[in-house]
Amino acid sequence: MRQLVAARELAAHGHGVVIWGFDIYDGNYGNIEKAVSAGEALRGARCILLPLPYSYDGIRLNCPLAEEEIRVSDILSGAEADAVIFAGMSKMDDPRVVDYYEREEFSVLNAIPTAEGALAIAMSELPITVHGMRVGVTGFGRIGKTVAALFRAAGADVTVFARSFAALAWAETYSCRPEHFDRLREEAHAFDCIVNTVPSLVIDAAVLKKMRQDTLVIDLASKPGGVDFAAAERFGIRALPALSLPGKSSPDTAGRIISETILNILCEKGVI
Amino acid sequence: MRQLVAARELAAHGHGVVIWGFDIYDGNYGNIEKAVSAGEALRGARCILLPLPYSYDGIRLNCPLAEEEIRVSDILSGAEADAVIFAGMSKMDDPRVVDYYEREEFSVLNAIPTAEGALAIAMSELPITVHGMRVGVTGFGRIGKTVAALFRAAGADVTVFARSFAALAWAETYSCRPEHFDRLREEAHAFDCIVNTVPSLVIDAAVLKKMRQDTLVIDLASKPGGVDFAAAERFGIRALPALSLPGKSSPDTAGRIISETILNILCEKGVI
Amino acid sequence: MRQLVAARELAAHGHGVVIWGFDIYDGNYGNIEKAVSAGEALRGARCILLPLPYSYDGIRLNCPLAEEEIRVSDILSGAEADAVIFAGMSKMDDPRVVDYYEREEFSVLNAIPTAEGALAIAMSELPITVHGMRVGVTGFGRIGKTVAALFRAAGADVTVFARSFAALAWAETYSCRPEHFDRLREEAHAFDCIVNTVPSLVIDAAVLKKMRQDTLVIDLASKPGGVDFAAAERFGIRALPALSLPGKSSPDTAGRIISETILNILCEKGVI
Amino acid sequence: MRQLVAARELAAHGHGVVIWGFDIYDGNYGNIEKAVSAGEALRGARCILLPLPYSYDGIRLNCPLAEEEIRVSDILSGAEADAVIFAGMSKMDDPRVVDYYEREEFSVLNAIPTAEGALAIAMSELPITVHGMRVGVTGFGRIGKTVAALFRAAGADVTVFARSFAALAWAETYSCRPEHFDRLREEAHAFDCIVNTVPSLVIDAAVLKKMRQDTLVIDLASKPGGVDFAAAERFGIRALPALSLPGKSSPDTAGRIISETILNILCEKGVI
Repeated sequence: MRQLVAARELAAHGHGVVIWGFDIYDGNYGNIEKAVSAGEALRGARCILLPLPYSYDGIRLNCPLAEEEIRVSDILSGAEADAVIFAGMSKMDDPRVVDYYEREEFSVLNAIPTAEGALAIAMSELPITVHGMRVGVTGFGRIGKTVAALFRAAGADVTVFARSFAALAWAETYSCRPEHFDRLREEAHAFDCIVNTVPSLVIDAAVLKKMRQDTLVIDLASKPGGVDFAAAERFGIRALPALSLPGKSSPDTAGRIISETILNILCEKGVI
Repeated sequence: MRQLVAARELAAHGHGVVIWGFDIYDGNYGNIEKAVSAGEALRGARCILLPLPYSYDGIRLNCPLAEEEIRVSDILSGAEADAVIFAGMSKMDDPRVVDYYEREEFSVLNAIPTAEGALAIAMSELPITVHGMRVGVTGFGRIGKTVAALFRAAGADVTVFARSFAALAWAETYSCRPEHFDRLREEAHAFDCIVNTVPSLVIDAAVLKKMRQDTLVIDLASKPGGVDFAAAERFGIRALPALSLPGKSSPDTAGRIISETILNILCEKGVI
Repeated sequence: MRQLVAARELAAHGHGVVIWGFDIYDGNYGNIEKAVSAGEALRGARCILLPLPYSYDGIRLNCPLAEEEIRVSDILSGAEADAVIFAGMSKMDDPRVVDYYEREEFSVLNAIPTAEGALAIAMSELPITVHGMRVGVTGFGRIGKTVAALFRAAGADVTVFARSFAALAWAETYSCRPEHFDRLREEAHAFDCIVNTVPSLVIDAAVLKKMRQDTLVIDLASKPGGVDFAAAERFGIRALPALSLPGKSSPDTAGRIISETILNILCEKGVI
Repeated sequence: MRQLVAARELAAHGHGVVIWGFDIYDGNYGNIEKAVSAGEALRGARCILLPLPYSYDGIRLNCPLAEEEIRVSDILSGAEADAVIFAGMSKMDDPRVVDYYEREEFSVLNAIPTAEGALAIAMSELPITVHGMRVGVTGFGRIGKTVAALFRAAGADVTVFARSFAALAWAETYSCRPEHFDRLREEAHAFDCIVNTVPSLVIDAAVLKKMRQDTLVIDLASKPGGVDFAAAERFGIRALPALSLPGKSSPDTAGRIISETILNILCEKGVI
């Protein structure tokens, strides 16, 4: 869905846009042209936008709304020699390929819908208000900062667990209580909600064992995530993995972020 | 549910609590006693807590978790002569009855879960983030103020429509854009979301006609509400009535608010 | 000064403005006409704007920038029979007189420069940052609310002391710690700064005696104020009266607020 | 002054503290010992705290409160072989020396008093409230972020000028309006206040020429700063250099930040 929004946004910026792979979707495409084949879409295109992630196996393109499957290699061979190919989470070593997922502005902007998605989960899953809720945020990178700021803006009492003194200082400027990661286990029982943003096993069995059963754990870290879900189940603690929140909870914003990032890159490359 | 939480909170404050009418519910009551009949629960009680609203018809008590029906008149005759009877939205003229719904602290505190409920609806129903969302709030009493503050804290661009110059001045101190109600029709097309808090028909057909079809209307006003839902449907605009949000979205907080209000009143009356 | 700004704002709204009593001031008056006498200024004027307060003794007009004194009675006799006379803090019973100081939007809007003035004092007088400062606010009306909100936005840890349960509930929605006034004495030692907004003696000797010597007291309440300054001096506690902050710290904003209030009143009266 | 506060804080953490060089100051030193000579203070010390900056010429120690001058070389020769020597803004290549000014947590924490200092200047120098003020912030590193967040929290309308797309994305998450640096000249007339944090000439004559004369420029960048002050004077624009704000406006907080940073470093080194 967000790719379609990105297409719409790019067209709204005055670019000629041709889409392919949205066969099933029967929406209003505005002045976006629908190609009859991938080949037709690729021919003459100066810029090609592939999904996020562009593929789950590196072989077939990730395009759930297409009726037929398309191979990534066919895209690469069909694309013009001077095309810019945008692919999300790509490890392709084709020099034409740019991974927009790696751009910092992309990550920063997506932190907003991710934080809102986490807030919406906390609101719907817990029987108390976020106002006054005791929330622990593990990790204080882009997502951690944005999550902490949003929960605090909504009136939560936020503690940030981080390892570096710099991150803890940042937490203080965000008016959150800074705590070293080492104290997580000891303080685990004090929270109504813990939001993890660290992509390594920080909410392990030892931490979960100390939590109250009415604490909710939301894991925003990409796979394999930062929570021992099996242990959580054993201890009767609700732990929810929450991936790809931007695309799920705010597809229009997520699509706009993709189109903005792509325009930034094209601008830097001198294409536009 | 929130009545049960209120019971738990009152017991946690050291008061002896006996409940009745929760037959169906099979939860953990802590040290709360369960009466076998309403009569038993009323006998000797210095304070009786009835639901919110206490009744829908003024005749039968509103107790959906009870297996059998009980008449309000039976409560009044069963209660001790010096008991304090708390009833939500009561118009009974029994001198023992106090309507806790009328207390200002009750309304003010409930504005928080109400605002969070509205935020959760906006987040789940719209494909864009609240951050950057253009939100119109109609009315600027307790609920309007709290809704505007929360949406703005989450990064929305909030316009407040109100009638009095004092309310518009308050809106300015909340860093919202103040606009006179007269301009609502003219500006209606500019919003992604409109939250109504005025309990009279302000979002009428003329206003709805000016809105974009992707605008979401959330009506927080008590019945009959402030939105012409039939007109909204005719114009293809999603308009959602959202009543009793505290009890629905944050029953534990809502129960705590009831118990706090009751303790305040008992404290004022010198009962505790 | 703010009266001059008000004049400029009114002229900018397209109204014909004549000033008198600013002899000493040699500024740029734009398209504002300067009358040679009070009489000339009054003649034909449909609306007359007097200072705030309009007079200190009820006899002579408060106009420090004028070379000669003018009597209030001369203004009243010189004004047209159908003129609207705006006078700040007026107790005159002339039916033409409107006290703009009594308007709620005037008080609400002035709460902002007042709160900023208090913040500036706390910043310049205390050797610590407002971020993390423990601040007590006594009273939670318009000024108290705005002060509490601003200090909290700047990262202070704010406790609100109030008497009514409704005010304490409001304090909770502002994410401040609510405490009953009765606990002020007991908690007085815990604050780096106490901002009073109650116009009666609440920061008395008993409270001051409990404070640390490095606590700063800022009294925003109008005379006679809410602080026992003699006792403060005796106990070695810095206590600063801070009156008329809008006019002192933000004269342009203060002038704009006067002109807005006056336009609102003229609009309600159907004059414009 | 802040060094004295740092000494007090370190003593309060249970460390034995000996000071030297505060001859003129006649304060209450608590349980801090005062050495009769620099040599005595250095002897046996495991940790030596020098000022910020430790010296202006690299030869004499920066100690304005001392009666006699001391040479940096004497400190180095007098210090124990295994001492840790903390020196602010040091370029000494003695292996015992650690520059605490270079620590990220030091910079991040000092961003708070710096931002508050800038806010206090804006409040005292401009005749309008910060609430509603149109503020431009140039640069979006630690200081820029904290300044923008604080002004916005106080109700200002903040535009951030930055060069990288990542910084502009961050500005968006802070609910500020992001603009590329290239547009600064074009938009310069729109601001009541511009706060510079970039340590290179960004507010040059061309930009200043476009500003209104009532715009205030605050330069927080370290020398040589980012403002063409001569041009500002020529154009009649008030431009204020504002250096070392933490030590000036919040010496106690600034001292606490030094002591915290030093304790962090000693902790990392395993000294404590």
